[in-house]
Amino acid sequence: MLKSQYPPQEDLKIRWSKIQKMLKSAEADACLIASSVNIYYMTGQIFTGFVYLPQEGNPLYFVQRPFHLKGENVVCIRKPEDIPALLTAMHRQLPSVLFLEADQISYNEFLRLKNVFNPKSVGNVTPFLRKARMIKTSWEIEQMRISAKQHIEVYQSISSVFREGMKDFEFQYEIERLMRKSGSLGVFRTFGNNMDIFMGSLLTGKNAESPSPFDFALGGAGLNPCLPIGASGESIRKGQSVMIDMVGNYTAYLTDMTRVYAYGDLPDFAYKAHHVSIRMHECFMKEGKPGVACADIYNRTMQMAEESGFSANFMGTVQQAKFVGHGVGLEINEPPVLMGRSKDVLEVGMTIAYEPKFVFPEVGAVGIENTFLVTESGLEKLTLFEEEIIRL
Amino acid sequence: MLKSQYPPQEDLKIRWSKIQKMLKSAEADACLIASSVNIYYMTGQIFTGFVYLPQEGNPLYFVQRPFHLKGENVVCIRKPEDIPALLTAMHRQLPSVLFLEADQISYNEFLRLKNVFNPKSVGNVTPFLRKARMIKTSWEIEQMRISAKQHIEVYQSISSVFREGMKDFEFQYEIERLMRKSGSLGVFRTFGNNMDIFMGSLLTGKNAESPSPFDFALGGAGLNPCLPIGASGESIRKGQSVMIDMVGNYTAYLTDMTRVYAYGDLPDFAYKAHHVSIRMHECFMKEGKPGVACADIYNRTMQMAEESGFSANFMGTVQQAKFVGHGVGLEINEPPVLMGRSKDVLEVGMTIAYEPKFVFPEVGAVGIENTFLVTESGLEKLTLFEEEIIRL
Repeated sequence: MLKSQYPPQEDLKIRWSKIQKMLKSAEADACLIASSVNIYYMTGQIFTGFVYLPQEGNPLYFVQRPFHLKGENVVCIRKPEDIPALLTAMHRQLPSVLFLEADQISYNEFLRLKNVFNPKSVGNVTPFLRKARMIKTSWEIEQMRISAKQHIEVYQSISSVFREGMKDFEFQYEIERLMRKSGSLGVFRTFGNNMDIFMGSLLTGKNAESPSPFDFALGGAGLNPCLPIGASGESIRKGQSVMIDMVGNYTAYLTDMTRVYAYGDLPDFAYKAHHVSIRMHECFMKEGKPGVACADIYNRTMQMAEESGFSANFMGTVQQAKFVGHGVGLEINEPPVLMGRSKDVLEVGMTIAYEPKFVFPEVGAVGIENTFLVTESGLEKLTLFEEEIIRL
Repeated sequence: MLKSQYPPQEDLKIRWSKIQKMLKSAEADACLIASSVNIYYMTGQIFTGFVYLPQEGNPLYFVQRPFHLKGENVVCIRKPEDIPALLTAMHRQLPSVLFLEADQISYNEFLRLKNVFNPKSVGNVTPFLRKARMIKTSWEIEQMRISAKQHIEVYQSISSVFREGMKDFEFQYEIERLMRKSGSLGVFRTFGNNMDIFMGSLLTGKNAESPSPFDFALGGAGLNPCLPIGASGESIRKGQSVMIDMVGNYTAYLTDMTRVYAYGDLPDFAYKAHHVSIRMHECFMKEGKPGVACADIYNRTMQMAEESGFSANFMGTVQQAKFVGHGVGLEINEPPVLMGRSKDVLEVGMTIAYEPKFVFPEVGAVGIENTFLVTESGLEKLTLFEEEIIRL
């Protein structure tokens, strides 16, 4: 493992203090974190066990596995029931108000941890973590830049692995190999139970219309009913677009980028709609800055879709997504969500994927997606790469 | 989607009636299922929504997404709060004892669903599903045979993608490409929060000793602290073993198979230990039949490890796994677990991965893993493929 893969202590301290501030205003004495993604956020590593963060002072890492993990804050345990006695032995007071990840850990795990501490009351720390993680630290932004760089490099090579007569999934697994070759970690994290996907999605032809059970922008039927998303065995024919929305999982921090490739010429309306998406991006870049409401961005985008005459094709046909973008970081679906009922405003340090897309029966999907960093002076595009439809 | 990818109605009925029998003996009126894996088990498809299974009669599929999903048992809903009124409109009684997936859905989701029905009491349906899924139906066994067939085909081609001078992850992504080419679905499911892995694991040299936070048989440091499992960038050198434990995810039903490849000759003790693993398999095949206790299989295996003189290297060195096998199906870690404190016995229709392995510092891991079907007359090996160490 390279040292550069670990966040510096100061960066972790910023994260702890964000959570501690929220614990304080909720009058919580401590939180206990058990999910992989939040353990990683709090410590820069993954272990099976718990991060105990009191309202003040440094956290303790209660580690079940790997055995004998070493480190400044590490305390080895066999089971969570060991924790209270260890806290007492360290002259720490047991929390009387304890926050747990009520949106992430199972009902039974929540009850078990509650019983371990038997606090006066419990609360939910998931929203605090989601909120803290929404604003990236400088180290986190650095990781996203590394992901973006590799993401772009792979997209530059995509055309080189296309062969005439390919089916969608054949093209996809050649792109997956390019990704792995460039350091893709393979898996990436999603928030919520029902968001299964493998490295991203590639859509062509009529499969772009297939509705998915998942809450991604677009769908696709998939190859098996146990994974109904993305490529379905559709042939890549002349006149069809190939929308490539493969994740940028080259570090723990994800970038999200979509580009459209085409084999032969597409119908005119496809190019027109693609340019509407590009103009939406230009408008987003011009108007997006700290303080702008996410709902306003959504409404402005919907208005442009309406004016373009392509609103029936916007964000799907049979099933239309009700958002045009989302936060991205350790998980692909982080806050804020660019949707009509959002109460969030853009804040410095947010990283947001904007993805206005159009679907046309028999042709496929068009439009682009980029990941942006919100800075004091506006939006910085992290995924700088050719935005026109790329000829295969 | 091919029709053969969907289970016949009679096969689903067997599954429903297994759960209904358990609901009945627990005096539960109904269960409501929300996790992807159990929705797939109950319906043969994935949707966002809920399967409502009463103690008697057919289930109802309350579907939120995809919109307009059609089917005999499908009822479209916007949110779970819509369900009680719909049940009443269908002249169905509301459940006064309701079982939910307490080990799978989040604390808040559990509370929300409980409030929707406001039953007299709630219970946990997760163990019922785990128990029902432990015994495969004939259609499920057929799916496992399809996975095994593709799994074997890929392992036959592994040597052909090896190149001198490769690092572990370079070899791995070439194998991943072979897998995808042969129809691997990419992702596969695990039970529990902290079991992240990508398509399987490839271990060579000293990385085989690296302990992992996860509850897999062996570890590996991984390429990034956010995914500490498997290949770590280790060079594949002469005298090192390469243990390949890539999943058989060619259908929703997984097979598990490990083989060892070697570049050049390994030290003698590595071949000896490998043959101990092969003999353990022979013994398991001879003695394993319905009624045999999983704990006895574990103890017998541990005894053979002891007698071999390699017990310090068995199932790891720095960190040793406390099991030698596990059930496998829709998830890679299903019951029963072959461990000392198991109360399970082998039953007809179980599918079990047996994986006695040895780790040697600087050399790597040796030993094999096969997936077996428990039949009335004993064990049938599904993953029939060369078991000796294969020269690269």
